[in-house]
Amino acid sequence: MTLPAAVPGRAVVVGTGLIGGSVGLSLRSLGWKVSGIDRDPAREARALEVGAVDVLGRDAGADLVVVATPLGAVEGAVREALSWLGSEAVVTDVAGVKAPLARAIDDPRYVGGHPMAGSEADGLEGAVAGLFTGATWVLTPTERTAPEAFARVRDVCAALGSEVVALPPERHDELVAVVSHVPHLVAAALVRQAAAAAAEQPVLMRLAAGGFRDMTRIAAGHPGIWPDVCAANAPAILAALDDLEGQLAELRSLVAAADRGRLFDVLAAARRTRRHLPTGARLAEHLAELRVVVPDEPGVLAAVTTCAGERGVNLFDLEIAHSAERDGGLLLLVVDARAATDLAEVLRARGFRVTVEDLP
Amino acid sequence: MTLPAAVPGRAVVVGTGLIGGSVGLSLRSLGWKVSGIDRDPAREARALEVGAVDVLGRDAGADLVVVATPLGAVEGAVREALSWLGSEAVVTDVAGVKAPLARAIDDPRYVGGHPMAGSEADGLEGAVAGLFTGATWVLTPTERTAPEAFARVRDVCAALGSEVVALPPERHDELVAVVSHVPHLVAAALVRQAAAAAAEQPVLMRLAAGGFRDMTRIAAGHPGIWPDVCAANAPAILAALDDLEGQLAELRSLVAAADRGRLFDVLAAARRTRRHLPTGARLAEHLAELRVVVPDEPGVLAAVTTCAGERGVNLFDLEIAHSAERDGGLLLLVVDARAATDLAEVLRARGFRVTVEDLP
Repeated sequence: MTLPAAVPGRAVVVGTGLIGGSVGLSLRSLGWKVSGIDRDPAREARALEVGAVDVLGRDAGADLVVVATPLGAVEGAVREALSWLGSEAVVTDVAGVKAPLARAIDDPRYVGGHPMAGSEADGLEGAVAGLFTGATWVLTPTERTAPEAFARVRDVCAALGSEVVALPPERHDELVAVVSHVPHLVAAALVRQAAAAAAEQPVLMRLAAGGFRDMTRIAAGHPGIWPDVCAANAPAILAALDDLEGQLAELRSLVAAADRGRLFDVLAAARRTRRHLPTGARLAEHLAELRVVVPDEPGVLAAVTTCAGERGVNLFDLEIAHSAERDGGLLLLVVDARAATDLAEVLRARGFRVTVEDLP
Repeated sequence: MTLPAAVPGRAVVVGTGLIGGSVGLSLRSLGWKVSGIDRDPAREARALEVGAVDVLGRDAGADLVVVATPLGAVEGAVREALSWLGSEAVVTDVAGVKAPLARAIDDPRYVGGHPMAGSEADGLEGAVAGLFTGATWVLTPTERTAPEAFARVRDVCAALGSEVVALPPERHDELVAVVSHVPHLVAAALVRQAAAAAAEQPVLMRLAAGGFRDMTRIAAGHPGIWPDVCAANAPAILAALDDLEGQLAELRSLVAAADRGRLFDVLAAARRTRRHLPTGARLAEHLAELRVVVPDEPGVLAAVTTCAGERGVNLFDLEIAHSAERDGGLLLLVVDARAATDLAEVLRARGFRVTVEDLP
């Protein structure tokens, strides 16, 4: 089931920081030829030095461009790459906010992406080849995305060891507001509150034990990307902040009422949820193949794959089989066997013809 | 400068869970004879089995009782211990809320305490001898506390490897609301918010990367103690929650205005604060001794020691020297030499006669 796109090719990494450098190191370890571009000549030179790229500069014959610049520069870099790349090549990016890019870039060769991987280390010096192993890598296909472009980017992400989940760009942005952007702001708020209290009571920081450290660790990261992320994803962040304030207000009322029973229940439920957070790669013991008959229409690939993604089902493999006998073709999705039947039902309810087959 | 109280003695641990068990193991490793009591006979037996105590039951000749029961049972256990203990003995506890106990218990032999140490592990099975090494251990003397009782408990905490900070009980409660109780509620609120969103979008939990995990780790702990803590410290928790909501509202307005510059400044300031959080034991390269002339009045010891504690100055050693020639005596405090001059000035401003001497 190895697809042609999984064969090592030629890639360009635009922006050779932590993520771009790690993409370069990872692709090179798989046999890709990687060229690199960075607006900072020193960082560019360093990328070559540490082996994140084979050469510097554009590679007009590249199969893949990965844009890993700061958010504010992504749209321009994607557009530029699309202007000089061949028609068979694909462009993806790794920005943490997807909807504005999806709205702005109208090209079937562009597939938005966001690897949910990072590092305490800032910049290129923190780049490592294994950064994406076991990470969830979100791709955000739209109705304009060419199915083949999506399949190729998915294969690359999977080859880097990631679990690929497809989501509509807006959905991605809503969800990362909840699990990433708002928590980051909350960490900053907790630190600010503590700093204000410590200004009057220096001992406060001496009382900050492990829990406070854990909760505020992300506030120790470089603030560089956050202003742009907050601006780009403001609507979803504001909605999630309002929602969180509702949660806090509810807890506040339980504290004010000294409602021990309900407080216990709420904290016990939170404990159960937290303990069941998936950790790292979910090893699927059994895989199944869904064969989905798809019309040859724009948006079908995005509809089917994000339908899986929204249920938390990642795409272990994906193949597009065009049919010579009929209009359209087959979309083959390989997913965890435990999720296959449910997903098939949902797709059938949306009018698709689906068969499921367990894989040995 | 070793004080008599640092000599191993006989202790009773009431409540042999994580903290009580760790106190028992630690004291035994220092040569103390430890007896243990727990309302749960199985845990009591297990405490003996794992060596957290030498024997079970009361020891009417004990020098020290450490009450480490759940918060709701502390007041009763302290009162009971005071009823059968000798007049030279002292009682301390490890509860996370101090003001209600300080108000309720009127006995010079009682010294409230709170070691800022914990463990991911619940209960006795997580108990270890080194749990308090390098931890901050808050003591909350009041005007009713006998100076000798305070000195004895301080010596024991220091012998267990902790840095001892004295604070007024109300101050302790205000500060732990900010650095512990409210963060715990916020972690639960973040988990609840994510759980509610995940009910509609199961994929959400797949997107929860390291930052979210760090921020919600404490929500994975057993909720057992929290309802009582929230009820006992409700006023301080409500004030801190309101303050946090103010911080969040300010960040919200910056996001709504897409004020990138101010967002950057705020996050950069939070980063600086977070990176300067003290970690573990602060090794003082040089110590200094403050000699404070004190009148023989109730509350003087609490006034002087909490004055140090509120400035984040811990008590490396403390001695009380009664003077035969005059009314009152000398309080000898050993502190970090870098903090000594400032602390002396503050004490002088409060009317104390203070001299400072660097220790070799």
